[in-house]
Amino acid sequence: MTTAQAPDAQLAGGAGPPRVDLLFEPGGRRVRVPAGVTVFDAASWNGIAIDSTCGGHGTCKKCRVRIAEGAPAPSAVDSRAFSPDELRLGWRLACRALASSDAAVEVPPLVTRPKAATVGVGRRVILRPAVQKRYLELREPSLADQRSDLERVLDALDDLELRADLHAVLAARRVLRAADCKVTAVVVDDVLIDVQPGDTTALAYGIAFDLGTTTVVATLLDLSTGTPVAVASALNAQQPFGADVITRISAAMLDPSALGRLRALAEQTLAGLTAEVCASAEVDPAHVYEIALAGNATMTHIALGIDPEPLGVAPFILAARLLPEVLAADLGLAVHPRARAVVFPAFGAYVGGDITAGLLASGMDRDARTRLFIDIGTNCEIVLGNRDWLLATAAPAGPAFEGAAIRCGMRAASGAIEGVTMAPDGLSLSVIGEAPPAGLCGSGLVDAVTGLLRLGLLDSSGRFVAESAAAALAPGLASRLTTLGAERVFVLHWLGEEGDVSRSVYLTQRDVRELQFAKAAIATGWRILLEEAGLAVGDIQQVLLAGSFGSYLSPGNAIRLGLVPDVPVLRVVSAGNVAGEGAKMALLSVRERAAGLALLEEVRYVELSDRAGFNDRFIDQLAFPSFPD
Amino acid sequence: MTTAQAPDAQLAGGAGPPRVDLLFEPGGRRVRVPAGVTVFDAASWNGIAIDSTCGGHGTCKKCRVRIAEGAPAPSAVDSRAFSPDELRLGWRLACRALASSDAAVEVPPLVTRPKAATVGVGRRVILRPAVQKRYLELREPSLADQRSDLERVLDALDDLELRADLHAVLAARRVLRAADCKVTAVVVDDVLIDVQPGDTTALAYGIAFDLGTTTVVATLLDLSTGTPVAVASALNAQQPFGADVITRISAAMLDPSALGRLRALAEQTLAGLTAEVCASAEVDPAHVYEIALAGNATMTHIALGIDPEPLGVAPFILAARLLPEVLAADLGLAVHPRARAVVFPAFGAYVGGDITAGLLASGMDRDARTRLFIDIGTNCEIVLGNRDWLLATAAPAGPAFEGAAIRCGMRAASGAIEGVTMAPDGLSLSVIGEAPPAGLCGSGLVDAVTGLLRLGLLDSSGRFVAESAAAALAPGLASRLTTLGAERVFVLHWLGEEGDVSRSVYLTQRDVRELQFAKAAIATGWRILLEEAGLAVGDIQQVLLAGSFGSYLSPGNAIRLGLVPDVPVLRVVSAGNVAGEGAKMALLSVRERAAGLALLEEVRYVELSDRAGFNDRFIDQLAFPSFPD
Repeated sequence: MTTAQAPDAQLAGGAGPPRVDLLFEPGGRRVRVPAGVTVFDAASWNGIAIDSTCGGHGTCKKCRVRIAEGAPAPSAVDSRAFSPDELRLGWRLACRALASSDAAVEVPPLVTRPKAATVGVGRRVILRPAVQKRYLELREPSLADQRSDLERVLDALDDLELRADLHAVLAARRVLRAADCKVTAVVVDDVLIDVQPGDTTALAYGIAFDLGTTTVVATLLDLSTGTPVAVASALNAQQPFGADVITRISAAMLDPSALGRLRALAEQTLAGLTAEVCASAEVDPAHVYEIALAGNATMTHIALGIDPEPLGVAPFILAARLLPEVLAADLGLAVHPRARAVVFPAFGAYVGGDITAGLLASGMDRDARTRLFIDIGTNCEIVLGNRDWLLATAAPAGPAFEGAAIRCGMRAASGAIEGVTMAPDGLSLSVIGEAPPAGLCGSGLVDAVTGLLRLGLLDSSGRFVAESAAAALAPGLASRLTTLGAERVFVLHWLGEEGDVSRSVYLTQRDVRELQFAKAAIATGWRILLEEAGLAVGDIQQVLLAGSFGSYLSPGNAIRLGLVPDVPVLRVVSAGNVAGEGAKMALLSVRERAAGLALLEEVRYVELSDRAGFNDRFIDQLAFPSFPD
Repeated sequence: MTTAQAPDAQLAGGAGPPRVDLLFEPGGRRVRVPAGVTVFDAASWNGIAIDSTCGGHGTCKKCRVRIAEGAPAPSAVDSRAFSPDELRLGWRLACRALASSDAAVEVPPLVTRPKAATVGVGRRVILRPAVQKRYLELREPSLADQRSDLERVLDALDDLELRADLHAVLAARRVLRAADCKVTAVVVDDVLIDVQPGDTTALAYGIAFDLGTTTVVATLLDLSTGTPVAVASALNAQQPFGADVITRISAAMLDPSALGRLRALAEQTLAGLTAEVCASAEVDPAHVYEIALAGNATMTHIALGIDPEPLGVAPFILAARLLPEVLAADLGLAVHPRARAVVFPAFGAYVGGDITAGLLASGMDRDARTRLFIDIGTNCEIVLGNRDWLLATAAPAGPAFEGAAIRCGMRAASGAIEGVTMAPDGLSLSVIGEAPPAGLCGSGLVDAVTGLLRLGLLDSSGRFVAESAAAALAPGLASRLTTLGAERVFVLHWLGEEGDVSRSVYLTQRDVRELQFAKAAIATGWRILLEEAGLAVGDIQQVLLAGSFGSYLSPGNAIRLGLVPDVPVLRVVSAGNVAGEGAKMALLSVRERAAGLALLEEVRYVELSDRAGFNDRFIDQLAFPSFPD
C-alpha cells in the first residue's frame, strides 16, 4: 500500500494558506502548519507543551524557545524579555513568533504544567478558552487622571487588543465606584463584555450543545479547569413534527406558522438543558459566557429562526455556511446577556455543523493518515482525506438504521434486539433492558443480515437461499427461514408458539432490501469520494464510525456488509459522539475553534445528486461483497 | 505677528501618525495628510476633485492619477486598470494608492462630476456616506452552484470587505427566492445589514441630531444626493428637570428612578423629531439606515441610559470618551432595525461630542491657521490650535448669558431686549417679537454693558461711575443711572412712569458683576490654553464663536468686554450651529467621520479646576480691558 498523495489543489477545495514545517527539539517531532500561526499555537495544536502561565497572551514571558534557523524578527515583547545576545542566538517568545518559514525550534523543559483536558478522539487540548477573566485593582480617578471608566479598564488590559460592548460600558459605570475600582473584566475573544465587582475569576463556564434531530446533549464546562461539571440530555422537543429533518422542513413548508413553533421548541429544549446542567452543578447561569452549538444545518437554521425550506428542495441551499456573530440570547438562552454562541459552520445542506465539529474532534484536519469519516443516520455524512485535503459528501441512506421502514423495526429502546450471534446450529440475541424481545433496532438488523450472509442463508444479491440449501448450511436455523403470506422471512424470536410467524420478531426479504439500499447509498458516496481523490480502497488508513449508531456497529460486520471499505478490521474505529466533543473543544481552546472554522476552506463539498452515473453506481453497490467465509 | 509654532508633541496630545506632503498638479496645491491614507481620500478631504463614479471603492477605475515621484507599488486593481508601461510611468488608481511618502500627483481633468454638498463652515464635502446600497441581479442557485444565500450576495460585493449581520442573513433567506435574485444590498460601513427585494437604491436616508440641553434639532438627509430634505426642532423634553446639565445630573443623583425617566424623555424627543422629519418628507423611517448624534457628554450619557453622576462631581469622569458600536434602536428610534448610530466622542466631561462635531464642521483639524474656537453657554468650551495640535478646556461661565441670575434677565424669547445701541444723548433697543420690552436676554446684556463701558458710565473695574461724572459723559442717559434700594442700576426701559425704577427693565451693579464672572471664566480659559501652547494673543489668526449665542454676539462687543482676545475685529467670526453641521458631515462622508474620530487623538484636554493659580488668574480677568475709546 502506498501513502496517499494529495490530489491537486482544485480537487482538494482550494489552495489555502501556504504551509511551513516546524521541527521541535528535543523529540524531533516535525509538524506542518499554516504559515502565519505562532510557534506557540503550532506546538500546542500538535500537543507539544511549551511553558506558559498566561496561555499565550504575551504577559507571562515563560514561553521561551530558541529558533536556531529561520527565526522571525524579534517582536516588541521579545526585546523586553531577552538580552541582545539571546536575541541573536534565536531566543524568542513562542506566543509572539510567527511561523513564516520552515524552522527548527528548541523547547526548554517545562517548569509549569499547562492546564489541558482530554477531549475528542483522545485529543489533548491545552486550555485557552475565548472567555478570559482578569481581576484588576485599578487606580482611583483623580483630577490628574481623568481617564474614562472604559479607558481605565482597557488600559489595564493593554496586552489584549479589545473592543467593548455597550453593556460593558454600562457595567463599568455601575461597578467601578461601588467596588472601589477592584473589579473583574470579562473578555470573550476580543470583546470586553462585562465588568464585575470584586474577584470573580473562578467563575467562568461554557455550555457545549450537541443539537441532534432526535437527542440534544448539553455539557457544562468549567472553563478555568477544562472539567465537565454537568451533563444532561433530552429528546428534541420538535419530535412531534417528525423523526427526521425532512419531516421538519416539510412542516415549515406547509404551514407558515410552523417555523416559529419549531424554533420555540428548539429554544425550549436548549433552555431546559441549560437550566438543568446549571442547577445540577449549582452554577449561576449568568456566569455562562459562551456556548457552542454543533447541529445539522436544518436544526441550526430552525434554532435561529432561519427558513429551512431551501435545504429540503434541490438545489439544497444554506442561508449561510458560516453564520455572522450570534449571541446565546439569539437562541433564547438566559445565560450572561452578552454570552457569545459559537455555531459550527456547515459545508452543505446535508453536511452540517455537527460534522464540522466531528471532524475537529477526530483531528481529520491535522492527521497525516488518509482517513474515511462516516456518520451513519437517515442522512449519512462521509468525509475522506487527511491534513492536506478533505472531500465531503452526503448520502441519503434512509431510515433503515433507525429501525424505521423495517417490518419489526424499532428504536434502540427497551426490548429492542441490538445484537444477534448466529451459528449453523442456533442463534443468541442480546436485548436492551430487562424486557423480552419486542423488535429489531439498527445494530440488530446489521447483525442479523451479516450473520445470514456469513452462513450463506442470504446470497450476495441479498436473496434468501432456497429452504433446501438452508437446511444443509445451517440445520439449526433452517426452520426459522419461512414465509409470511407471499414473503420470505427469517424468524429471530418466537413470541408466541413456534410456527406462528405473525406473532414473532422476524426479518423480511423486503427488510434486507431496505438495508441494501441504505448501504448502497453509503458505499456509493465513499466510492465517489475515492474516485475524486484518485485513490483506491487500499489507500484508506483508518475508517472512523461517528455518531451513536457508529458506536454500536461492529467493525467486522460493517466491512462484511460493504458499508465501509474492506480494510483490515482493526483500522475501523468507533469514534463516539464526536459532534459534542468538537463543541467542547471549541469552548476550551480558541486554537481548536479556529481549526474548526478553517475546515470551511479545507473541505470541498461534493454534491452527489446531480452526478452523472450516480444511479448506475448505486445499483452496482446494491449487492453484498463476496467474501470467502 | 509670527506664524504659530506647534508646541512639543507631549503638549499637543501625542505625536499621532506621521504626516506626508502631497503636491497636486495642475494647480500646485500642497496638502499635508497622515501617512497611510489613500491619495483619493487626501485629495477629496482637501476639496480637490478626482474623477470617480464609485466613490473610491475600486470598482469604476476612473480615479486615474500619475504619481511621478514617490509612487507606491501597484495594487492588484492597478494591474488590471493599467498597462505595464503606464504603471512604470506612475499611473495608479488614486483610491488604491496609499500616501506613504511625499509625492507629486498629476490629476487629469474631470470627466464626471463628483457629488458634493456644502456643509459646516463653508466646507465642501464630497459624498461618500457609510450607507451604500447596491442593486444586484444574482445568478439563481443550481446543483452546480450551491453557494449559500449569504455567499451569493457577498460574492457580488467582493470589492468590499464585508461582514454580515444575522438580520441580513434572515433577510437574504426571505428575499432571494421571492425576488428572483434581483435584490438591493444595504451596507453600512463594512457590515451588510439588509437585503431588500428589487431596486431600492434611491431610498437611503440618515438623520443628523444636534441633541442640546435646551433644544434638539433633527435634519433628515437624502444620502444619495447629500440634500437635507426636512428639518425639525423641539425643546428637549427633559426641560422640567432643570435648564442646564447640572440640574439634570443632580436629579439623577437624588432619585434612582430619575435616570430612567430622563432617558425616556430623551428618547421621546428624538423619536418625535424622527417621526416629524420623516412625515414631512414622506420618507419611510425604515429607509433611515444611519443617524448621527452630536450632544454634550451629559445628554449623550443620559440618552444611552449611562449614569451621568460622575460627570457632575470631581474628578468629572466620563463612562467612555468613544462609545462602542451603538444602534439607533439603542436610542429608542424606530428606523431601520439595524441602523447604526454615530455618536460623537467626548474629550472630557465638559467638552463633549457637540464640540467634537463643531471642531469637525469648522475644520479646526486641518486649517493651518491657529484659531480659537469658543462655544459660549452655561458651560463654555474653548479649543485652541491648528491642524498640527489642538488644546481644549471647559470654563464654568455660569448662566449669565442665558439671562439667568440677571435681575431682569429672561430667555431670548418674545419681549426680550436682544440689542441695545447707546450714544451720549440716548439709547435705542431692539426687542424680540411684537411685544413690548419685558426683560433682557444674553445678547442685550452684552450690548448694554459694552455700551456703558464705551461711554465711560462703567469703569474698567465694572463699577458704575458717579452720577456727576455720568451727567458729563452722557447727558441724555444720566437720568437712567439711578438706585433701587441700596443698589445702583441703569434703566434700559421704563415700563411704568419714568422714575419708577421698580417697574422698569434695568441693569444692576450685581448684573454687571455676573457678566464679569462669566467673561473672566472664559478669558481665563483661553489665556491658560495660550500659555500651554506658548503663544500670545497676537498669534491667534481667527476666533470662531460657535453655538446659537455666538451667532447673536457682535464681534466688536465680544472684544470690548474681553470675552475674546483683542484681535482685529474681522478675525472674529460667528460659526453658527456647528454641532449640527458636524453631525451632517459625519453622515455624508466616512472621511469626515474618520477625521472627527481622529480628533480624539489630536486634541489634548486641559483641566482647569485643579490648576495652581487658577483663582488668581480668574481674579486678574475680572476687570474689563482698557481701550482708548
